[in-house]
Amino acid sequence: MHQTKVAIIGLGTVGAGVARLLLDYGDRTARHAGRTLWLEKAVVRDLQRSRDCELPPGVLTDSIQEVIDDREIQVVAQLIGGLEPARSIMLQLLESGKDVVTANKALLAEHGPEIFDRARALGRCVAFEASVAGGIPIIANIGQCLSANQLLSLHGILNGTSNFILSKMHAEGSAYQEVVTEAQRLGYAEADPAMDVDGTDAAQKLAILAHLGFGARVHWQDIPRSGIDTLDLADVRYAQEMGYRIKLLAVAELVEEKIALHVSPTLVREGRSLAEVGGPYNAIRVVGDAVGQLLFYGPGAGQMPTASAVVADMIDTAVGRSAITFRTLELWSNREARVAAADYASVRGRFYFRLTVDDCPGVLAKVSQALGEQNISIASVLQHEPDAAGSAVPLVIMTHETTAGAADRASATLHKLASVQAEPVRMWVRD
Amino acid sequence: MHQTKVAIIGLGTVGAGVARLLLDYGDRTARHAGRTLWLEKAVVRDLQRSRDCELPPGVLTDSIQEVIDDREIQVVAQLIGGLEPARSIMLQLLESGKDVVTANKALLAEHGPEIFDRARALGRCVAFEASVAGGIPIIANIGQCLSANQLLSLHGILNGTSNFILSKMHAEGSAYQEVVTEAQRLGYAEADPAMDVDGTDAAQKLAILAHLGFGARVHWQDIPRSGIDTLDLADVRYAQEMGYRIKLLAVAELVEEKIALHVSPTLVREGRSLAEVGGPYNAIRVVGDAVGQLLFYGPGAGQMPTASAVVADMIDTAVGRSAITFRTLELWSNREARVAAADYASVRGRFYFRLTVDDCPGVLAKVSQALGEQNISIASVLQHEPDAAGSAVPLVIMTHETTAGAADRASATLHKLASVQAEPVRMWVRD
Repeated sequence: MHQTKVAIIGLGTVGAGVARLLLDYGDRTARHAGRTLWLEKAVVRDLQRSRDCELPPGVLTDSIQEVIDDREIQVVAQLIGGLEPARSIMLQLLESGKDVVTANKALLAEHGPEIFDRARALGRCVAFEASVAGGIPIIANIGQCLSANQLLSLHGILNGTSNFILSKMHAEGSAYQEVVTEAQRLGYAEADPAMDVDGTDAAQKLAILAHLGFGARVHWQDIPRSGIDTLDLADVRYAQEMGYRIKLLAVAELVEEKIALHVSPTLVREGRSLAEVGGPYNAIRVVGDAVGQLLFYGPGAGQMPTASAVVADMIDTAVGRSAITFRTLELWSNREARVAAADYASVRGRFYFRLTVDDCPGVLAKVSQALGEQNISIASVLQHEPDAAGSAVPLVIMTHETTAGAADRASATLHKLASVQAEPVRMWVRD
Repeated sequence: MHQTKVAIIGLGTVGAGVARLLLDYGDRTARHAGRTLWLEKAVVRDLQRSRDCELPPGVLTDSIQEVIDDREIQVVAQLIGGLEPARSIMLQLLESGKDVVTANKALLAEHGPEIFDRARALGRCVAFEASVAGGIPIIANIGQCLSANQLLSLHGILNGTSNFILSKMHAEGSAYQEVVTEAQRLGYAEADPAMDVDGTDAAQKLAILAHLGFGARVHWQDIPRSGIDTLDLADVRYAQEMGYRIKLLAVAELVEEKIALHVSPTLVREGRSLAEVGGPYNAIRVVGDAVGQLLFYGPGAGQMPTASAVVADMIDTAVGRSAITFRTLELWSNREARVAAADYASVRGRFYFRLTVDDCPGVLAKVSQALGEQNISIASVLQHEPDAAGSAVPLVIMTHETTAGAADRASATLHKLASVQAEPVRMWVRD
């Protein structure tokens, strides 16, 4: 049987999972690839550290140069996180004639144009299924399986940490900070979860999907985004009372043939498939003009789900499928975008507002006037009796369809009203 | 730009959709394939019949020979239903050096070994994404994206007609025959829906998925199957009362390293993803040992969803991905199975029984004794007060986990009891 020599750079959680799949289940990969994937080298920084996998003698090394110099190693899984030295190593590997598989979404979101253009120029390929949504093969589905479609929209729950926290807040009525602590204890949140909960991680993944599925050329930092880190338990409760769940959605939509992107906590109506995605799971709803609506659901992170995606990419690369796919994918490039960016302010949708207002006459009139000035009509209002006389009360309003721009302008006007006490909370609503 | 000449055999609903995607959206397929897919010929039986698409002059023909003789035509979408002449045409096309794309699941389920072995021998390939679950790319996901996994189980709603009928029975409380008539009026059921509602269609699709995902070698007729055509509205109502929905599930499970397959109406607990799949939609839940649980949801039939799958296959075939994939897929072959068939009787699960019993003392004792003899313990019992004194009453029993064999033996014993009036209804339960 043919043999393809492969290497792994980085034996962290995912790297160890990849090594285990290659070593312990070699017959399986051989059967699906029609050739053996032979793990020749695994490169680590610290040779002394204990690992989550056992390697045959001679495989472990702390020298990337050994991989680069070995011309027989054709496929390298580059599993180092962060931007540097990940970027330099990636370029070095490509220059030395290797095809590369990676799970590093931050790297692609930041240095995609450079890496992909360089790979193309060198006739090499980069596979990155594991960079978005862990075990869900969303890259292959969008890049290959839906190629007869113009995508019309994509709505994704792409950050498992945020989804775990939101699910717990809904299920247990616990406040954000309390749930974060529990998530950290259970391993669903990092010691510093900032990038997961502030929308950065989801925006980086959305940037990758927008390039791939829509031909967009957008840097993730230009995607309007808000996270769940400022979410108040009160909003979770009001959402529930009205039959919705709050989800951190990454959204790409064609609006008049332009692409609108944003990452936002969103009220999703209960019973809708995305509302029912619980715990650390991910899900992506894609609408194509030929196929209609598809939903993909699965584990968005974790050692073996991510390793499953990395090894599938290694097989695809070893057999030559990745090279074919890579040539035609609409990937980062310094070339021009095929689709222009829509003005975020023009994106249409329904909105949820929660205001903290004085408990006195005439407030609702002023609030509805401020909305009316922006042509926003009210779909429903929720105001409970105050706990104590004279105190501030929450006023919750769901609007009919309007634009993000009108909603933001209304929000600013509302904030200035004397009877509105704090900054209004404003979220998207999806029925 | 490179050009690949393609042809379509059969311009029915799906064929017309494929022609439209190729002709009206040629720029899109060219972008995703890196080459033009040029529709050279479309073969029909009757040149006079009006079509759902407009073809350029010279494309329409009633001669398959024209396609076979044109050595420049490399990829052919063979979209004729049924077994013959579909089989002969398929073999002719392969012999003449063409790669073939098909949506004909019945043909593959019946003549798969012959067709696939012949294609392999000739160095050709067959792509068949559209043969299972319409627009859901389940073939690519199982055959390619999950190649690092040993699949452990697959549960599919694979027949849209049955799912539409079941959803309506649940939502409207209408009887089977009434809903079938409505489904026919709306185009969700054929004039003769037998193959859809009796489990044949789902078993044929399950056979394809079992070959692909588990290395099984099973003929669809050897898959135990029952359909929804004998389903009583009473069972729909009892299921609902107990918090379940009845779905026609196609199931493949590894049981002690053997493969167990069946197609059965099954009570699925509400809130589970498969229970929530409504209307004519399809869904497939796959568990892999590395990736864990994945769910794929989408349109299981229809002109453009199916055409989306066919054109994706034509692109994959034109660029050479299908050829690579085809070589390693675990497909039909007259070669030996990699996995043995499990004894259906040994498959474990919970069961629902509905008995029609005399409304007299001691019946429940006899029934529970018959179950006890098979070591089946009762999880819950439902018996409503009878409408009229002395008449027969329905007795509904949900069991704890047991085996299909024990459930069938108990069912036979129960049928023989003097106080049990009709054949017991027995269904699988999935929590």
